[in-house]
Amino acid sequence: MNFVKLVRSTFALLVLATTAQAQDPLPSWNDTAPKKAIAAFVEKVTKEGSADFVPPNERIATFDNDGTLWCEQPMYFQFFFALDRVKALAPQHPEWKTKEPFASLLKGDAKGALAGGEKAILEIIMATHSGMTITEFEKLVADWIATAQHPKFKRPYTECVYQPMLELLAYLRANGFKTFIVSGGGIELMRPWVEKVYGIPPEQVVGSSGKVKFELREGKPVLVKLPAVNFIDDKEGKPVGINEHIGRRPVMAFGNSDGDLQMLQWTAGGDGPRLCLYVHHTDAEREFAYDRESHIGQLDKGLDEANAKGWTVVSMKDDWKTIFPPKE
Amino acid sequence: MNFVKLVRSTFALLVLATTAQAQDPLPSWNDTAPKKAIAAFVEKVTKEGSADFVPPNERIATFDNDGTLWCEQPMYFQFFFALDRVKALAPQHPEWKTKEPFASLLKGDAKGALAGGEKAILEIIMATHSGMTITEFEKLVADWIATAQHPKFKRPYTECVYQPMLELLAYLRANGFKTFIVSGGGIELMRPWVEKVYGIPPEQVVGSSGKVKFELREGKPVLVKLPAVNFIDDKEGKPVGINEHIGRRPVMAFGNSDGDLQMLQWTAGGDGPRLCLYVHHTDAEREFAYDRESHIGQLDKGLDEANAKGWTVVSMKDDWKTIFPPKE
Repeated sequence: MNFVKLVRSTFALLVLATTAQAQDPLPSWNDTAPKKAIAAFVEKVTKEGSADFVPPNERIATFDNDGTLWCEQPMYFQFFFALDRVKALAPQHPEWKTKEPFASLLKGDAKGALAGGEKAILEIIMATHSGMTITEFEKLVADWIATAQHPKFKRPYTECVYQPMLELLAYLRANGFKTFIVSGGGIELMRPWVEKVYGIPPEQVVGSSGKVKFELREGKPVLVKLPAVNFIDDKEGKPVGINEHIGRRPVMAFGNSDGDLQMLQWTAGGDGPRLCLYVHHTDAEREFAYDRESHIGQLDKGLDEANAKGWTVVSMKDDWKTIFPPKE
Repeated sequence: MNFVKLVRSTFALLVLATTAQAQDPLPSWNDTAPKKAIAAFVEKVTKEGSADFVPPNERIATFDNDGTLWCEQPMYFQFFFALDRVKALAPQHPEWKTKEPFASLLKGDAKGALAGGEKAILEIIMATHSGMTITEFEKLVADWIATAQHPKFKRPYTECVYQPMLELLAYLRANGFKTFIVSGGGIELMRPWVEKVYGIPPEQVVGSSGKVKFELREGKPVLVKLPAVNFIDDKEGKPVGINEHIGRRPVMAFGNSDGDLQMLQWTAGGDGPRLCLYVHHTDAEREFAYDRESHIGQLDKGLDEANAKGWTVVSMKDDWKTIFPPKE
């Protein structure tokens, strides 16, 4: 083989290899059962004329966020945000030095602060998530998310997202699905960055929210965040939030905890083909391993129901080649 | 000119004429100020490199429904639905024969029924819009909208929509806008038919809603409509609903009454180019004429503010060639 021929053959092989790789829309997934189940499902619902065909306008896929699209350990990232806000606001609140849960928080004792249970969490959220306009809050979130770092992975929270799930989102959209977030987290803590990171626009985000009030301030319209809960988008709230925001039952639903169980039940309960999937955190080395006993993202009843009903369960350790995107 | 040439020329002229017509995306609008304002606005915000360019993902246009996309006289169509439901349910409620507002309604005296004001309306809505699953309610709406007729126009309510607005919706979508309904009407009364009639999918409908509860009934998940108000998407509620559902400020907003004023204020208050438009009901002959004194769709403060701020005001009589679509 002369040199020119060698170059030509090598180039042809390279092209073939590149094409093969480009043809796999889920390169970070191992060729195990979950990847096969997803591909088979997408193929049958998008095949015109098939009994399982779902028209494009009904292709709704809903994703939990914490623990499903991005990491949720050692604590919900929203709590880290609140913690940073408490520190920033402390000079304006001298009373916090002696008032729980703020006093413990300011001493760096998050566990002590959380001893007050749900009431303490609510107080922290209210103190840090209200009293400003939505535009001001959006800027706080955008600034924080651009600079804060995950304590274990030492990279921005927006890089603690799961590469296989990013590929899945893009793959579903390429197949005519509309992808939604349905999260227990605050809707306004996600909207400033999810479009860039997940390709999901703000209008396709369902989440928990506080009450908001319209006002004219010197003729200028503002929306003010009030210290009151509007909606909790968790557990039984998820199908309710889906109904309120989307108005259609999902065809596919993705979660990782018992907080997602009702969303998966609601999805599975529809007529026609449905796919329900749980991400199971089994990878202590590359991420975290937790399920039935976890203080966050507990997966107990959900795991039993997934096994009983034959839902797809992803073992992060066994089914994912990589966890996070390459460092930028 | 021989015959073949004549046929060819005529055909060429026909093609030219058809093309010219096809090029006007708003054929039911007269060439008056509103049409020009809309076209100029769309042109500048979609022109890449222009100072007023708005990227496609931010092109949000919100439309009120009652009186803006479809007719709202002599009474909100949702009230006709409730009335028909009261009649259908009456045999199961013998007590309604003597209990207001139902007693008057059943005698055909809507005015008497409404003498009880907001409380009476709420009672009628609760009695007819709750106590079933959302799936059952959706079927009731779909059946009703397929058969009920408008008392004046003697055609289905879904044909009492404004042809110029249908053209406007399609024109905006063709220019990359995402079109939303933001209505004071019930969200679940719109969703079963707006996709077919307006090309707006259920997930782009914001409206008033009742509370909904998730339940497992013999293992089957259902969402049950409760007799309690969840959200009123009117006046100050419209910017709140837009924030909750869309999470972005609209670039264009369309209304017809004081109930839309805050939505238009919120839209106008954003940075960059914005277009606010009021549909003014000035056509007693082809539709209805009403504004400052109307019992429904009152347009008083809104008209003053539109004039003061230079918002676009459409006179249905002068600016629209046709009101309704041709009969099917």
